[in-house]
Amino acid sequence: MAHDVTILTEADLRHIVSLDLQSVDVVERAFAALAGGQVVMPPILSMAIPDAHGEVDVKTAYLPGFDGFAIKVSPGFFDNPKIGLPSLNGLMILFSAKTGLVQALLLDNGYLTDVRAAAAGAVAARHLAPADTHTAGVIGTGVQARLQIAAALLVQPIRRVLVWGRDHDKAAACARDIASRHGVEAVAMRDPARLVADSQLVVTTTPAAEPVLKAEWLHPGLHVTAMGSDQAGKNEIEPAALAAADLYVCDRVSQCETLGELRSAIAAGLWRKGTPPELGAIVTGSAPGRTRDDQVTLCDLTGTGAQDTAIATFAAERARQAGAGSVIST
Amino acid sequence: MAHDVTILTEADLRHIVSLDLQSVDVVERAFAALAGGQVVMPPILSMAIPDAHGEVDVKTAYLPGFDGFAIKVSPGFFDNPKIGLPSLNGLMILFSAKTGLVQALLLDNGYLTDVRAAAAGAVAARHLAPADTHTAGVIGTGVQARLQIAAALLVQPIRRVLVWGRDHDKAAACARDIASRHGVEAVAMRDPARLVADSQLVVTTTPAAEPVLKAEWLHPGLHVTAMGSDQAGKNEIEPAALAAADLYVCDRVSQCETLGELRSAIAAGLWRKGTPPELGAIVTGSAPGRTRDDQVTLCDLTGTGAQDTAIATFAAERARQAGAGSVIST
Repeated sequence: MAHDVTILTEADLRHIVSLDLQSVDVVERAFAALAGGQVVMPPILSMAIPDAHGEVDVKTAYLPGFDGFAIKVSPGFFDNPKIGLPSLNGLMILFSAKTGLVQALLLDNGYLTDVRAAAAGAVAARHLAPADTHTAGVIGTGVQARLQIAAALLVQPIRRVLVWGRDHDKAAACARDIASRHGVEAVAMRDPARLVADSQLVVTTTPAAEPVLKAEWLHPGLHVTAMGSDQAGKNEIEPAALAAADLYVCDRVSQCETLGELRSAIAAGLWRKGTPPELGAIVTGSAPGRTRDDQVTLCDLTGTGAQDTAIATFAAERARQAGAGSVIST
Repeated sequence: MAHDVTILTEADLRHIVSLDLQSVDVVERAFAALAGGQVVMPPILSMAIPDAHGEVDVKTAYLPGFDGFAIKVSPGFFDNPKIGLPSLNGLMILFSAKTGLVQALLLDNGYLTDVRAAAAGAVAARHLAPADTHTAGVIGTGVQARLQIAAALLVQPIRRVLVWGRDHDKAAACARDIASRHGVEAVAMRDPARLVADSQLVVTTTPAAEPVLKAEWLHPGLHVTAMGSDQAGKNEIEPAALAAADLYVCDRVSQCETLGELRSAIAAGLWRKGTPPELGAIVTGSAPGRTRDDQVTLCDLTGTGAQDTAIATFAAERARQAGAGSVIST
């Protein structure tokens, strides 16, 4: 039986979905649903394609209260830049959660992943950073460095942004972009320890395999969001920092244990606090978040299928309202 | 960077891909590649959506020698017939195996899965049924019952077809369809034991949870292909039959152990022959197949991501040659 499928290109999606308080709230709702326990979120399907230095991940989740569920396919082919193509690509497919029929194909080339990853950073910054967060630091100088700062600015009264990267020129360019886009002071730093010392909120956004943030740099009144590690080989935060923090929070414990900072801390034998709380439990209040401004908190984001379902549902609804995209009958 | 994606609807795909010797050969090549050991085929991602009596499976495989790899998403929502919709749906996405870019969206609603499942039956019938297979029986009366017979007719000199189902009227309708479509004698049987006794090739195509083919029915010169079981709750073949057969063959051992007939035989404590050969090894000759016409052989098909990659690549190539489908730039 024929039914209609809406097809949205990256250009369509950039036009109708951006990182704003609405997309942050939708992603926050996904975390709350995750905490509710009725979510179905299978382990990530991951396939390596060694012949092409490539990999592909598939994520999905069913969230009660959302009309659809997304399946996201994220290929990463790391020789692509040699031929002028981006390494990361992909699409999301939105299915009806009532009938399983395909509702929309979101040919976003990874754009919605960027938005929902930044939105998760905003959720963490909203619930875990100290009340008067006026200086935010970012480690890393790529798309997510810019977006995580944009996300933090939505939810905290940040007036000053510090940027550090291994390549100082890239850090300077990133700082210039942030200053001109958001009208805040933004400074490229030469010393990441100094960046952390001067910040109330630090976001790490690198694909580092060795820690870029040391435990000894933690200081009272600091929140760190580590969003770079999403694979077993990555590690941004020195393992001792997880134990040293007053509160360590996972986006999803089962993922952080195998793909996040928690994996490295467990491997180093430095995690002995049992099962950490999840961000959704902080959002709903079922687990305590930051209780004093002088605490040190740390949030580990590996990226969840729940966020994909949330942003895809949101994008399809925005597209419907705007009459965006093309429709094919199949 | 914008690139072109070809979109093919079910109607497009039915026009350009059918169950014929070419599609059988492509699927046979996929099995040969599986046997070659260079294939990457992750475990199936499976998600239940209990609120809607639904489930969704995701399969994929990378096959060296194929330009692309497919990711197939198969939702099954079993309350759909109540509202006039089919239970099974889904699509395949074809990616470049060189760059990971999306090449084609195959909105097939499960059609290509039907074709590649039947094509696997043809591969099994070609390599495992006795040389002079003149009578073929099918247990089950649905789409796959018809297609598995069509597949067998492509590769064996079958003159007579026997059909059995729990609903005799459906068996009669299936037999009429087969007779009119293929110009062979086709008879609906009232006794499945008699069907097996009179056949050299039997294909079981049911979603049975209890065996529909008994071990005592096996007879010299019989090949059985069991293609119905693809989930842990299903079982078409009495477990003792696997041990009693001269040769038992899996499409993929790791899948048959958890989803196929082998699962039931292991659970019953009746499988003690070690690791069975895979169909691909029979195809390439690296494992012996049927060596005498009086042997009893049994092939367990659970459905592999390798078949999906094969049929999706084939469909996209046919579409390119025919200029079929629509192209979107994203």
